[in-house]
Amino acid sequence: MYRIGGRLIFDLYGKSHGPCVGAVLEGFPAGMEVDFDLLNEEMSLRKPTGRIGTPRRESDTPEFKEGLTDGVTDGGNIRIEIANKDTDGSKYMKFYDTPRPGHADLPALLKFPNHDLRGSGQFSGRLTAAMVAAGALAKQYLSARGIEIQAYSKSIGDVRDVNVRDPEEIRGSRMFPTRACDAETDKRMRLCIEKAGAEGDSVGGVAECVITGLPISFGGIWFEALDAELAHSMFGIPACKGIEFGDGFALAGMNGSVSNDPYRYENGSIVTTTNHLGGIVGGMCDGSPVVFRVVFKATPSIGKCQDTVNLKTGKNDTVEVTGRHDPCIVPRAVAVVEAMAAITVMDQLLRE
Amino acid sequence: MYRIGGRLIFDLYGKSHGPCVGAVLEGFPAGMEVDFDLLNEEMSLRKPTGRIGTPRRESDTPEFKEGLTDGVTDGGNIRIEIANKDTDGSKYMKFYDTPRPGHADLPALLKFPNHDLRGSGQFSGRLTAAMVAAGALAKQYLSARGIEIQAYSKSIGDVRDVNVRDPEEIRGSRMFPTRACDAETDKRMRLCIEKAGAEGDSVGGVAECVITGLPISFGGIWFEALDAELAHSMFGIPACKGIEFGDGFALAGMNGSVSNDPYRYENGSIVTTTNHLGGIVGGMCDGSPVVFRVVFKATPSIGKCQDTVNLKTGKNDTVEVTGRHDPCIVPRAVAVVEAMAAITVMDQLLRE
Amino acid sequence: MYRIGGRLIFDLYGKSHGPCVGAVLEGFPAGMEVDFDLLNEEMSLRKPTGRIGTPRRESDTPEFKEGLTDGVTDGGNIRIEIANKDTDGSKYMKFYDTPRPGHADLPALLKFPNHDLRGSGQFSGRLTAAMVAAGALAKQYLSARGIEIQAYSKSIGDVRDVNVRDPEEIRGSRMFPTRACDAETDKRMRLCIEKAGAEGDSVGGVAECVITGLPISFGGIWFEALDAELAHSMFGIPACKGIEFGDGFALAGMNGSVSNDPYRYENGSIVTTTNHLGGIVGGMCDGSPVVFRVVFKATPSIGKCQDTVNLKTGKNDTVEVTGRHDPCIVPRAVAVVEAMAAITVMDQLLRE
Amino acid sequence: MYRIGGRLIFDLYGKSHGPCVGAVLEGFPAGMEVDFDLLNEEMSLRKPTGRIGTPRRESDTPEFKEGLTDGVTDGGNIRIEIANKDTDGSKYMKFYDTPRPGHADLPALLKFPNHDLRGSGQFSGRLTAAMVAAGALAKQYLSARGIEIQAYSKSIGDVRDVNVRDPEEIRGSRMFPTRACDAETDKRMRLCIEKAGAEGDSVGGVAECVITGLPISFGGIWFEALDAELAHSMFGIPACKGIEFGDGFALAGMNGSVSNDPYRYENGSIVTTTNHLGGIVGGMCDGSPVVFRVVFKATPSIGKCQDTVNLKTGKNDTVEVTGRHDPCIVPRAVAVVEAMAAITVMDQLLRE
Repeated sequence: MYRIGGRLIFDLYGKSHGPCVGAVLEGFPAGMEVDFDLLNEEMSLRKPTGRIGTPRRESDTPEFKEGLTDGVTDGGNIRIEIANKDTDGSKYMKFYDTPRPGHADLPALLKFPNHDLRGSGQFSGRLTAAMVAAGALAKQYLSARGIEIQAYSKSIGDVRDVNVRDPEEIRGSRMFPTRACDAETDKRMRLCIEKAGAEGDSVGGVAECVITGLPISFGGIWFEALDAELAHSMFGIPACKGIEFGDGFALAGMNGSVSNDPYRYENGSIVTTTNHLGGIVGGMCDGSPVVFRVVFKATPSIGKCQDTVNLKTGKNDTVEVTGRHDPCIVPRAVAVVEAMAAITVMDQLLRE
Repeated sequence: MYRIGGRLIFDLYGKSHGPCVGAVLEGFPAGMEVDFDLLNEEMSLRKPTGRIGTPRRESDTPEFKEGLTDGVTDGGNIRIEIANKDTDGSKYMKFYDTPRPGHADLPALLKFPNHDLRGSGQFSGRLTAAMVAAGALAKQYLSARGIEIQAYSKSIGDVRDVNVRDPEEIRGSRMFPTRACDAETDKRMRLCIEKAGAEGDSVGGVAECVITGLPISFGGIWFEALDAELAHSMFGIPACKGIEFGDGFALAGMNGSVSNDPYRYENGSIVTTTNHLGGIVGGMCDGSPVVFRVVFKATPSIGKCQDTVNLKTGKNDTVEVTGRHDPCIVPRAVAVVEAMAAITVMDQLLRE
Repeated sequence: MYRIGGRLIFDLYGKSHGPCVGAVLEGFPAGMEVDFDLLNEEMSLRKPTGRIGTPRRESDTPEFKEGLTDGVTDGGNIRIEIANKDTDGSKYMKFYDTPRPGHADLPALLKFPNHDLRGSGQFSGRLTAAMVAAGALAKQYLSARGIEIQAYSKSIGDVRDVNVRDPEEIRGSRMFPTRACDAETDKRMRLCIEKAGAEGDSVGGVAECVITGLPISFGGIWFEALDAELAHSMFGIPACKGIEFGDGFALAGMNGSVSNDPYRYENGSIVTTTNHLGGIVGGMCDGSPVVFRVVFKATPSIGKCQDTVNLKTGKNDTVEVTGRHDPCIVPRAVAVVEAMAAITVMDQLLRE
Repeated sequence: MYRIGGRLIFDLYGKSHGPCVGAVLEGFPAGMEVDFDLLNEEMSLRKPTGRIGTPRRESDTPEFKEGLTDGVTDGGNIRIEIANKDTDGSKYMKFYDTPRPGHADLPALLKFPNHDLRGSGQFSGRLTAAMVAAGALAKQYLSARGIEIQAYSKSIGDVRDVNVRDPEEIRGSRMFPTRACDAETDKRMRLCIEKAGAEGDSVGGVAECVITGLPISFGGIWFEALDAELAHSMFGIPACKGIEFGDGFALAGMNGSVSNDPYRYENGSIVTTTNHLGGIVGGMCDGSPVVFRVVFKATPSIGKCQDTVNLKTGKNDTVEVTGRHDPCIVPRAVAVVEAMAAITVMDQLLRE
């Protein structure tokens, strides 16, 4: 299923080495004038940079195929398409025989008899460009209603940002290629990625996302819980292997007397004095910012020789990946996390 | 939304202090003779025991209101109902004024003008009894097809089981009240829970779940990915604050050359020689067992005095909880994790 | 699928000779005080009367199992249950061998290996009691917003009401057992039904439904069109064999210059001066009342000897039906048409 | 909602005067080699011909943007796009002020603030080209499984084909521009359409569709009934105002002893000896061919002067339509009926 959502339906399409990737937003209200500067900024944040991203270069210009009239959303489906231009399928042929470990290759080949492995076909991270484009519209819609969604690189490899970051600091991550919150961390993260890349290896990391401006009780019950739907959409991002809210897995070791966030009145509003629970109780907001982290594994496509099977010979074999790949996708994934969070929150907002 | 699923729809109903809780399974194939011994075993694993669970005592006998004819599924909707008998709403009245921190009380009161707070109303963990009953049917269905789902307590408070557990050991956790995998860990976990309870406090923990028997390529793409749907259903369980697959958050610090699980032929089948990725790549199974962990926060209802607001006076206040509550829900949640995993996997199986 | 709806989900359950039938409404807004007099009136309109309905007698008292707190909708799922008391399964055994022509018996037996034929099991018209109960709530909700839904018997057998009926006349049909709009037509329809019943036969008919108060543009596009969703829900009523809007099938023979309903201003509002199209263009309201008709076939269970097959002997055979059945279901179906129309319109209203 | 379906999701996009129209089929099984001759034949049957269709000329060549690898379905989403080339929006500007009676103009303008009226925007019958292209794939899939779907023009204006037509005769309608079943009827229908066109008027009609090869019990219960889902998808076709199965509205006047279709064994199979009920009982097939009729109203865009309102002046006004329009859409709609029936039946088949 390329689709998620209840009232705002988000639908992906395309593949890595086809003519384009794209997304449809169904249920987007009419009347919003699209801020193309914002859209382009979001798109550029997902683009690879320098030695810390893939050498594949795409202009990534979103074309609105429907849903806009004179730059304003017209209440119909919004369809955004992004052309694939810099494709090079020559390096993928061998993966039909020797599928890459840690990659969708093997199950995809078994599931789809005619699977197109080039650039990973419809499993390609390239479709996240369409996520970011659609997410930019959702972000703009939410921002006009006081809801802001900001993410940054919490850790990459062994470099971990141990500070608690406020929304303004997180916003500052937009000026750093690794999406770190300060220059020092950015430098350390860059070195970490470049080192992995130089060794023909790759490295994982964690993105943290903070959502502000949601009123107390925003969210839903049981399977419509805000955290449940955010978890679902985050796992829709390739390479995501986990999500945690607030103190997350550390909550296992905490007593309730510690992890319960106390309520207080502050200028007539109810606030919590701590935020161990990440702003969500019972699937609904409790007045704190919503805070969650998403872990991304290292990219599976690496230059090192790896053990795998050979589907043609039926024997054990090895594979080395020589195409163009990211040594770390976390810096680019930060923009995707923001986009999918925005789409999910906007979908819930339209259901309120 | 009390409902989840694509082809097998699972639908919850009821509330803590109403006449009953229940669940509907829509799309369950006809012809399966229900194993009532298995069903009762699952139900009993969710029941509170000794001093490590709530003193509320319910017989938790599932009644089949429809969907069975002579004990065999008849292809219609299966509706299972569980009566509420041991209810005592007397202790909940004060939470209308002073909502419990860390609890659904406050957002629920703001969201639903006539919200019934007794036992947390429709947010009650009591509805997980219906999850377990429905899950028992799904487990039986899957088991007949070679798919087994087993969970256990990975950690409770500061007690952590550091061993890698195989399915047989995990199955052994059924004989221990804490769902630990061995007697020694069980004893330590019990002490940890009893200590928290004695102090009027509560404690969190982690459940680990292992799914065996899924063929390579089982799962789906993008938002239908097996991990995405498991994440969604796990966050449907109250108190869940995070989920991770395989090495989970530790993958952030790993290189691809380590985390990629190599493929090998073994007796003609493809297997992986490690399982860092938890058996899932690209949303589909890679031949390893599926392994994930779910963290549950400490129960918010504790005897200690906590800061909160008073919605009637509009002033800051405190609250102490005196009803019947679990000092730790992890031992009981293990059965719920198995149940929801089974429902999710069976739903995907029916879509294959 | 026992379920329909986008934002207001309506879900049926139960069977004819089980303990009860029921319905769930998910997504019904909190805060409506239920008018039980209206609810009971709607229920009584679906009950069989005199010789024109089945002799099966049920009190049909809807019990609210959840969703009401002190008689007010509380924002949770509303579950309404109606007990089955006057069941008599003795007459159904022979249909396992000799399925009734014109009835769900044969396909149901082939589809569901353990199908319970008594009272037609889960296919029973008895579940329409739950439709009417749920529909009464939707009607009340709509009525408070100026939207009224009224239906009546347009024809029964060869008795056809040739008048154009306005909402007030249609409302008057509530005092006549056949749901005719005047005493004279009621008498003729009654005779028609009684004649069929006396001959051990049954007869069909047409219900017409008029919806007033919908604003211009109410509805949706393509498969969310108001007429598309009404058609879907009407065919969910047993025995429905067709639906037409406005002049319906007569539109085939009309020119556009006749069937196009002209717009005019009237007291500042836009109205149409004719209503050939039944108030809907492009799936949305055009300002006229929405008018549609639903045809119901004659009940298949008749006393006359009919040709059928014998599934046990594998030979041709005959069957006579001796249970309790309606000689005409149209008078009772009128209430069901109103109910399902109300549920569908309210669902669309919540999506606007 | 541009989307319909449970397991096979059909999703429309585009508008009349945008760059293209298109459709996505999600859930189409991998491995079917597309028969492009069949596809082109279906497309050509929807094209306007001579004086009985619009003068707008489009090549209507479906391009597969995704889902095919070397002409074979690859298990991914199938996206088919059809370019709009012969657009002329000059004649539509006045409808912003004086909306056409009988047309989506007025409600669409009120619903969507920036609605693009040219060619009716996203309400355009032009999107039915995408229905036909997608339907051609579903037809091929069904045909390989012995299921055939055939439709023809049952009536146009006052010309009515009174014969019962068998599948072979219906197939013959493909050689006649009006989709009549014989040359004589074709001629009379053509004259009827040309007469209306010459008068600046338009005319309606009825398409009849016959589905053969469905096994007894094919279909579903309640809102998943085969007739309920066919009704929903038929009302998704613009200008549809009614649907009836078997004897349809005539069943109102029939006794059960007549309308019940008796079962008999014939060469070991169960058949019905009559087909009053259109092959469906209880939402499932009874062994007879499924037969239904769909009525289409006359095209609203006519050259005659019509009364309407002027939204700019707020006064009554008139409008004459001078763009390119079909005097009768029934001959073209026949192909669309077949396509949508095929998509709906295939969707149900994948759910069986």
